Amino acid sequence: MKIGVAGLGLIGGSLALALRDRHEVTGYDTDERARAAAKADGIRIVTRLDELLPADAVVVATPISAIVPALEQLAARSDGAVLLDTGSLKRAVADYAARAPAGARIVGGHPMAGTTSAGFSAADPGLFRGRAFLLVPTARSDDRAMTVAGLIAREVGATVTVCSADVHDRAMARLVAGPLAAAAALAVAGAQAEPLLGAAGPGFRDSTRLADTPADLATELLFGNGGDAAAAIGSAGSAVGAERALISPAPEA
Amino acid sequence: MKIGVAGLGLIGGSLALALRDRHEVTGYDTDERARAAAKADGIRIVTRLDELLPADAVVVATPISAIVPALEQLAARSDGAVLLDTGSLKRAVADYAARAPAGARIVGGHPMAGTTSAGFSAADPGLFRGRAFLLVPTARSDDRAMTVAGLIAREVGATVTVCSADVHDRAMARLVAGPLAAAAALAVAGAQAEPLLGAAGPGFRDSTRLADTPADLATELLFGNGGDAAAAIGSAGSAVGAERALISPAPEA
Repeated sequence: MKIGVAGLGLIGGSLALALRDRHEVTGYDTDERARAAAKADGIRIVTRLDELLPADAVVVATPISAIVPALEQLAARSDGAVLLDTGSLKRAVADYAARAPAGARIVGGHPMAGTTSAGFSAADPGLFRGRAFLLVPTARSDDRAMTVAGLIAREVGATVTVCSADVHDRAMARLVAGPLAAAAALAVAGAQAEPLLGAAGPGFRDSTRLADTPADLATELLFGNGGDAAAAIGSAGSAVGAERALISPAPEA
Repeated sequence: MKIGVAGLGLIGGSLALALRDRHEVTGYDTDERARAAAKADGIRIVTRLDELLPADAVVVATPISAIVPALEQLAARSDGAVLLDTGSLKRAVADYAARAPAGARIVGGHPMAGTTSAGFSAADPGLFRGRAFLLVPTARSDDRAMTVAGLIAREVGATVTVCSADVHDRAMARLVAGPLAAAAALAVAGAQAEPLLGAAGPGFRDSTRLADTPADLATELLFGNGGDAAAAIGSAGSAVGAERALISPAPEA
């Protein structure tokens, strides 16, 4: 297939590297350094988003806030190309798809393979191996579009699970936003472990690793799905409060 | 040196394996299967705790609740042997040392190298490499005892940090009890991510790994230091509450 990749960060870069042996892959990024890095790694590069078309599929792997604008620009002239995004929230994509041109083919995607590293320099063709790749059908998905999206997901080594945008976003609040908020809270509380903070073992480091999530991504994950994120954080907070009460029934000031 | 190791679980077993090339190491465990497993791995074994004496040092690596009883039994006839425990809480050891026989030599130790695995079968001589090994002087520590304890810590590849029992236990509440409570809370909240719980990525898995801590150890860590643990959990809970309020100012029911 002829596959375009818009956004050559960790996810888009890894997809481009994983797909280029079997497909004709072309990459694009708004950032000239990302384009240069991908080009140096042998990825064919274009300098404008719509030069990724015509294609069989275009993967939109930009930051979340840029996904719908990129889909809008591509959908206007996609001519059947399957547009597959890779963002961590899916309602906005589903909402856009419902009002996209009738001929557009749009599938929401979410490979569960983030790390706290970012950028093409962290890209790794093995990033998705053994991971889940969630696919969300939209009002502009059809059998062919789902098949193409599933093929891409499986070819990078991931396992496909199909779900609705609502189910996806609520679950991600539990699996991503809650842990992210907890990691930040533990890092704050951990600062009071000085002078022994440096002695922290692997348990503390794993528990706070997500606090190193790039700030713009963390903001999008927490604020982009505020209602679900707040509910998930509140649920974890209630469980923590119950544990605290069990341990020490008399609350401290 | 002649070194006894009481308790051949993950920590004691790993210490015995790490020390046996350079020292005359003898192991003891209340559990016959642990003794047999260590013996099969070439560790010299005795079948009663006080047969670890006479020795230059005895490492007490039992579950936390058994540490002071073991120290009491050993101190009565330790004849200068340095008694070094490896538990995750240090106030009880310091308190016991203050009332131990005048001739006893007792140092509190805490290698920051736990995993959620347990038992001799998980023991690994490389477990402590690059980790911190906290040493807590007690009323029954002297220069020789601290030197022997420090030597053992460094010979297994760890870095020594010396602190008081109070500083230790308060810090551990931040570095261990808080993360443990958060992991359990996130696992509870995460259950509501069904049907997508199985799709969770590495972030969620790292964040909830400590929820797999063996239940008896988790109970000792949380309840054995209840005041500090509750304060640490409360501190993390407050930080989480603040994040939740930022994301969604109107509280949910």
